[in-house]
Order: sequence, then C-alpha cells, then structure tokens
Amino acid sequence: MGDFICDRPIGVFDSGVGGLTVAHALMTALPDERILYFGDTARLPYGTKSSATVAGYAAQITEFLLKRDVKMLVVACNTMAAVALSVVTSMSSVPVVDVLDAGARAASRATRLGRIGVLATLTTIKSEAYDKAIHAYGSELVVISQACPLFAPLVEEGWLDHPVTELTAREYLRPVLKEQVDTLVLGCTHYPLLKPLLSRLVGPKTLLVDSAETTATRVADLLTAQGLRRPSGAPPPVHEYYVTDVPQRFRAVGALCLGHELPDVHLVHW
Amino acid sequence: MGDFICDRPIGVFDSGVGGLTVAHALMTALPDERILYFGDTARLPYGTKSSATVAGYAAQITEFLLKRDVKMLVVACNTMAAVALSVVTSMSSVPVVDVLDAGARAASRATRLGRIGVLATLTTIKSEAYDKAIHAYGSELVVISQACPLFAPLVEEGWLDHPVTELTAREYLRPVLKEQVDTLVLGCTHYPLLKPLLSRLVGPKTLLVDSAETTATRVADLLTAQGLRRPSGAPPPVHEYYVTDVPQRFRAVGALCLGHELPDVHLVHW
Repeated sequence: MGDFICDRPIGVFDSGVGGLTVAHALMTALPDERILYFGDTARLPYGTKSSATVAGYAAQITEFLLKRDVKMLVVACNTMAAVALSVVTSMSSVPVVDVLDAGARAASRATRLGRIGVLATLTTIKSEAYDKAIHAYGSELVVISQACPLFAPLVEEGWLDHPVTELTAREYLRPVLKEQVDTLVLGCTHYPLLKPLLSRLVGPKTLLVDSAETTATRVADLLTAQGLRRPSGAPPPVHEYYVTDVPQRFRAVGALCLGHELPDVHLVHW
Repeated sequence: MGDFICDRPIGVFDSGVGGLTVAHALMTALPDERILYFGDTARLPYGTKSSATVAGYAAQITEFLLKRDVKMLVVACNTMAAVALSVVTSMSSVPVVDVLDAGARAASRATRLGRIGVLATLTTIKSEAYDKAIHAYGSELVVISQACPLFAPLVEEGWLDHPVTELTAREYLRPVLKEQVDTLVLGCTHYPLLKPLLSRLVGPKTLLVDSAETTATRVADLLTAQGLRRPSGAPPPVHEYYVTDVPQRFRAVGALCLGHELPDVHLVHW
C-alpha cells in the first residue's frame, strides 16, 4: 500500500506554461518522480485578473488533479498561491506545496541585511501575499514589492536578452534597488528565464531567489519526511501534460521553460 | 414596431477592454444609439490562443447578446473576427459588422501604391484573415503582416509613449516599412491608443487605418441603409457594460480606451 502511494504522480499546476520551470526543477532534483502537469492555457494569464476569478479556476484544477490520484499538489503559479491557496488546501486530501511560500522561506533565510525585493505579477503584488509570507518567517524583514506585468509577455515573445527587455527591467528594478535590497525573489514562474539578464543588472551582491529551485527543494524534503519518495529502482517515470488550449508558440515557450522539447500534451475541454 | 427595433441597443463585444475604442468611436459617430458592451475580461487575451478556443468563446458571447435583443452585432475584436466570424454570423438573426472587414475595406480604398501593412496579434496574423479580406477588395494588393504581441500588454501597462514602447515599435515596424507600405492597418483594438507614437515613427507619408473609426463609419452606413437608426428625438441613450471579471487596472485601461471614466459595469459569472 505504501509503495502504491509512492508510485502516484506529483500534481503540478500553473496558469500556463511558466510552471514548467518548476516541473523542470522537480525532474532535475527528483529524477524518479512522476509529474502530472496541468496548465490552464485557455484562460491565462491569471496575473492581471481578480482574486475571485483566480480562486474559481484554482478550485477547478485542484478537483481535476485530485481525481487523478496525485500524492502531492504543487501550486506552481505565484498568483494562485497568492490569492487562492486556502481554496486549494481546503479541498486537498494530500500535502500542498506552493511556490510562494517556498520563495518566501528561501529569501528569509538568504538575506543578510534583512531587505528583500519581490518581483511578481500585478495580482500577486496587490494581494501582499509575499509580504505576509516573508513576515511569517521574520517580522523584522523589510519587503520591497514591484509589479512587473510586462515580464511574462516578454518571455513569451522569446526576448530573453533583448534591449527592450533590458530597458523594461531597468525601469522595474530602479525603485527596488534604490532600497538597498540584498535578496530578490523572482515571484512568477516566467521570471527564472530572465535570470541571466537580471543577474547582470542587479550585480553579484544581490542574490536572486528562483522559486522553481526552492520549490523543488521543499518538495524533496517533504516527500522524504513523509516517506512518499518513489523508489529509485522503479521503472523510469513517465510524465503527463494537460492543457486547456494549445496556443500559438506554446511549444516554443514550453521548450524554453522545460529545457527540452515538449512531448505530446492532452487537451482538456472546459 | 419599426421604432421598437430602432430603440434596441447595438451589441459590441471584445475579449476585454480594447473594444471600448470601438464603442467610443460609435458613441461619437452615433450619439443617439444605445451600446451594450461585452468584454470577456476573465479569459482575455484571445490573441495568443487557438482558433478553436476563441470560436467557442465567441459563440457563448453571441448567444448572450442575442438574448438581450440587440439590433446589430459589432465584433470589436480582431482576433474573433479573424477566426470566429462564421460562428457569429451563422448564429445571428441581426446584421453583423466586424472590425477586420471594416479595416480591410478602408485600407484597400486608401492605399495609393497598393502596398498595405497589417499590425495585429499572433492569432490574427497566423489566420491570414487580413490577407484574405484585403484581397477580396483587390486581388492585386500586396499585404505585409506583422504580429505585435507586446503592444497590448504595453498599452495595458499605460506605457503609451514610453521608450520601451518606442523600441518595441521600431523592432516590429522595421520589416514592414522596408516593404514600402503606404497604408498601415492597426489590426487590434488596443493599437489606436499607440497612434501618436506610431504616427511619429512611420512619418506623414504612411496612412494609419484605425479600425475603431472605420467600424463606426460602417455601422452608421448600415443602420441608415436598413432604416435602423434610433431617432435623434429619443431620450438620451443609456449604455450598458458587461464583463466576466473586473481585473486590476480595468478602470484605468477602460478610461484610456473610452476617453472618459467608466460607469458601473455588470459582472457576468461564467
């Protein structure tokens, strides 16, 4: 029975393809685990929509994944984690890990000066969820937030190191860097793809917290602690991908996030 | 009975708030007409999504508006007009005007050299709907198409005359201007807000076709021809606005598109 539970997939979900950066980090950190990925590509992006709408979508996806017998849920979308986490946890019979808490935890441990910058979508920033999560790990920590609504569209355009992206990043970073932060949370799953550019702009003294990596670490810790790791002697894992739409450029952006070509995806009609 | 039909509203619909540029042009050209506006703000943007998904959404909105007894349907979203017009017309018992055909018609009449550029979303460009529509007005016309996926997010950020927007526009315009077009169609309802910037970049010799204005002209002609104009002696028109979500910055972008503050909007739960 224990083995049976261990063999179940980890359900990873996002508003679109950005969460594949989290899936990729999971596959690297936990090469024996099966991933069941869900991207709500028909209704993306979530980052500019109201909390009520995002919460309704999150509930629908949670139900979908629980029906497919996942052993853990990973909310790989900062916006959903920011405004709909309680909806997901209240429905879930399995452990829930979310990118936002993982990023907040990692940032609070990494900062030396106690000054943390957060870059995220409009809806995530307005929710003040990062402020709350970081303050839960240290009430003295100072959080400087900046909404970066153009970053996701720039990543989707493939302009990862384009002059337009650099100019946009300089504009968004200016008020944050003025506040002398030493740690910067990339609070949207698209942003890790901008890491090389952002690293160059903020310089070597500012640490970038990549929520994909920190989430994978958190998932690994939790699976081990709960005895839920899939044994390494098991047959190689087969991953599954579900999306609500196969939009233009989906494969290109997916390959960017995942680091390799996307396999076939299942289309869900909602 | 005739008067009763004339008093019905014109149903104008879009994936979000961009279609308010069309609603605004209609209110200016036809100040006695009632407008019933529908923006699918929960599921926007359509411009990067598949044709099948956009067609499904278009059918749902058409049904909604027809139930509310509109006397004409205006497809104020180029993407819907590009990939879902036949769905709308096949369901509709009232005349249908769409921004794409209005823009294609105006551009084909305006060009002197027979070389027309089209700026639009990815899905619109991939559909080749502008090519087909323009060629229906003149098979000898040359169409140069350019997808501009960052323009709508830049407008939503409010960066109408920002260095980032200028740099992005220069990048998108380069291949189009190299082809010596003399007429440029702004093939997305967000783009008229970039008209001052684009005018400056393309110079006085290139005519910009604003699909909001050309659509209003087309609606006015058709209402007059069919005897459907609301009489000017009638009580001042009351407009109604329906959206599927009230997202962040909705009011700000809506006010930009409409030229004045947005009144209260009705929220539709789908």
